[in-house]
Amino acid sequence: MNSGKGGDMICDRLWINANLATCAAAAPGLARIERGAIACREGKIIWCGPQRDLPATLTAPEIIDCEGRWITPGLIDPHTHLIFAGDRSDEFARRLAGVPYADIARGGGGILASMRATRAASLSRLHADAAHRLAAWRVEGVTTIEIKSGYGLDQTTELAILRTARALNDATMRVRTTYLGAHALPPEHDRATYLDLIRTTMIPMIARDHLADAVDGFCESIAFTPAEIAEIFEAARSHGLPVKLHADQLSNGGGAALAARFAALSADHLEYAAPEGLAAMAAAGTVAVVLPGAYYVLREPVAPDIAAMRHAGCAIAIGTDCNPGTSPIMSLRLCAHMACVLFGLTLDEAWRGITINAASALGLAAETGSLETGKSCDLAIWSVADPAEILAWIGPAPLHQRILKGNDA
Amino acid sequence: MNSGKGGDMICDRLWINANLATCAAAAPGLARIERGAIACREGKIIWCGPQRDLPATLTAPEIIDCEGRWITPGLIDPHTHLIFAGDRSDEFARRLAGVPYADIARGGGGILASMRATRAASLSRLHADAAHRLAAWRVEGVTTIEIKSGYGLDQTTELAILRTARALNDATMRVRTTYLGAHALPPEHDRATYLDLIRTTMIPMIARDHLADAVDGFCESIAFTPAEIAEIFEAARSHGLPVKLHADQLSNGGGAALAARFAALSADHLEYAAPEGLAAMAAAGTVAVVLPGAYYVLREPVAPDIAAMRHAGCAIAIGTDCNPGTSPIMSLRLCAHMACVLFGLTLDEAWRGITINAASALGLAAETGSLETGKSCDLAIWSVADPAEILAWIGPAPLHQRILKGNDA
Ligand SMILES: [Zn+2]
Ligand SMILES: [Zn+2]
Repeated sequence: MNSGKGGDMICDRLWINANLATCAAAAPGLARIERGAIACREGKIIWCGPQRDLPATLTAPEIIDCEGRWITPGLIDPHTHLIFAGDRSDEFARRLAGVPYADIARGGGGILASMRATRAASLSRLHADAAHRLAAWRVEGVTTIEIKSGYGLDQTTELAILRTARALNDATMRVRTTYLGAHALPPEHDRATYLDLIRTTMIPMIARDHLADAVDGFCESIAFTPAEIAEIFEAARSHGLPVKLHADQLSNGGGAALAARFAALSADHLEYAAPEGLAAMAAAGTVAVVLPGAYYVLREPVAPDIAAMRHAGCAIAIGTDCNPGTSPIMSLRLCAHMACVLFGLTLDEAWRGITINAASALGLAAETGSLETGKSCDLAIWSVADPAEILAWIGPAPLHQRILKGNDA
Repeated sequence: MNSGKGGDMICDRLWINANLATCAAAAPGLARIERGAIACREGKIIWCGPQRDLPATLTAPEIIDCEGRWITPGLIDPHTHLIFAGDRSDEFARRLAGVPYADIARGGGGILASMRATRAASLSRLHADAAHRLAAWRVEGVTTIEIKSGYGLDQTTELAILRTARALNDATMRVRTTYLGAHALPPEHDRATYLDLIRTTMIPMIARDHLADAVDGFCESIAFTPAEIAEIFEAARSHGLPVKLHADQLSNGGGAALAARFAALSADHLEYAAPEGLAAMAAAGTVAVVLPGAYYVLREPVAPDIAAMRHAGCAIAIGTDCNPGTSPIMSLRLCAHMACVLFGLTLDEAWRGITINAASALGLAAETGSLETGKSCDLAIWSVADPAEILAWIGPAPLHQRILKGNDA
């Protein structure tokens, strides 16, 4: 910390009279600090603790009185497919009429329907639509969001989606990008050719141009086999890119164990993951990202085995999986609510699932996700008497302000 | 319709280039009219149909080009407990830990916890909080909302809640009020005394001062028996007030049949209602109001028997049941979504459930709930290519504008 004249410690902004839900990495639950303060300098938290312990020498040109509001880490959505064109609301009606998702996908609906619309869309339209959608995350206090490609599948469109996602990363939203070429097999290729394109053309190019922070795959009977995913993960590894996996959503395909084998940042969905796979994930430090929105929309009969995750010591995160087919949901808070109600997470687990553990799922645990010295000053400030209100209520978020890297966002 | 000079038909406002989901009472489903127009005069729809059929003599000082947007009836939430004080988010955490709602209620939580906070709150606070909450309905295109009393239980507070609800009825929102004295037994009375208060003091006073449009009761093992409810309904009937009923939510108490016996406007919840009760409701014209939010939050094991409702010919409506304990939900759209996903309603049924059938549940079917000549000009105008998008997506509503009685609201 820089010192000013006379030994004063200078910061840029100081929030006082706040209650803090720090979600600190090493502490359990919300790790609350009532009547706390946060000091920020150059975008980072340089002090965070009970206000009575605030160093007398700490000075700030701007002091913000939070009037007893609660501050949580800015929320983090670790799993979205935000960039797409076209609407698939008709599939919602078809599923209500009893058509299984796998049948819709095999019949040219599902991912390929979005692929056709996305390929046909202009770049400016893709960007404008995604930017418009992002407003839904902003009003809920989200400061970091992951965006996957995977609705282009051809080289041009996948790169365009990743560049669009990169362009959405700005002073008001931290965006992490993931290359999901292995989302579905595009109609113009056979499997071998497409896997080759992913491994030998796309991944090297994406790594070289820093277009993605991770590589993802959809390991499922209707998508790619574990062996195919392993080839892709080898390529990612050889180009220095961490991996993530859509694993064991509709059946147990050994996805959790596969993700662990590659020390994936996260394995996501996990409805059918076996306890051994979850234990392997815990050992590998792979975060379990649960996606209750898709589970709810698809009326899946099997929920993720949260008890086994707890027993194994898996970190659990929660994402929206926002996509136009199986999870048309633009509310991370609602997904946290559903993780509680439908999967049985506790409120504390839900809070960590959209803060510190979501940061881990993106490889960002050192940078954001908790209110701790040295981390980015990413805050959500809430007009509530207790953080429980933020997640227990469904509807407009009681957000007062959102701060990214120390600035109003 | 008034005629102007030369036989022109004059209206105040004319919406053109719109697609209409009329939800007409006599037609099935959305009763769509593509490329339609709506003419309004003195707050009422005086013409509605395909634009090509618009009478050449119809003139309007204000013509609104909808640019292809969809117009639906303004949405209607037929069941809320919007006026309350206090927060019960702690109960959410307790229920996640496995405590049944009935135990929470018996232990002084539940309705009585809200009662204590509501009795202690100032009138201005009750009004301000409820008005603040109403914003959540506005942004989703709701133009009519029902508000129940039932968190006061004593004379002063119940009357204050009903007056507050009446005061929320203004040029931007149609509010219907319901007296729900029989929500819970207040601690200061024995059962007989409290029922007497409801029957011989409250209902006559409320009827005389036009404070409520209906009388409601909670018929359940943890609340009031069918015999007690019947006494209350007799009193309501003798004072000219229609009735509604919280029926068969947690067990089959014969609530559906009881509601039918009194030709109730609606029976609500109905998770455990038997087919015979539903058939009696259909015969009596009693609307089945399903409340999937409470079902979801309470993780109820039994869903309403939608197949039996369809077979009986029951009109089905959907409400939020917004309340601080069992349905802390401020999104009618989400409840419509849940009615589809959790209860298996079709999209068409969901649409009618939050428009024309919700109007019927409030005794307002002649006044609002569909786009038909003679009805109030209550519109929701949406920026979508198809109405399916409005309900298939969860998150901010794609609402363009809300019209109540012909005016921007
Ligand atoms: Zn996904
Ligand atoms: Zn209710």
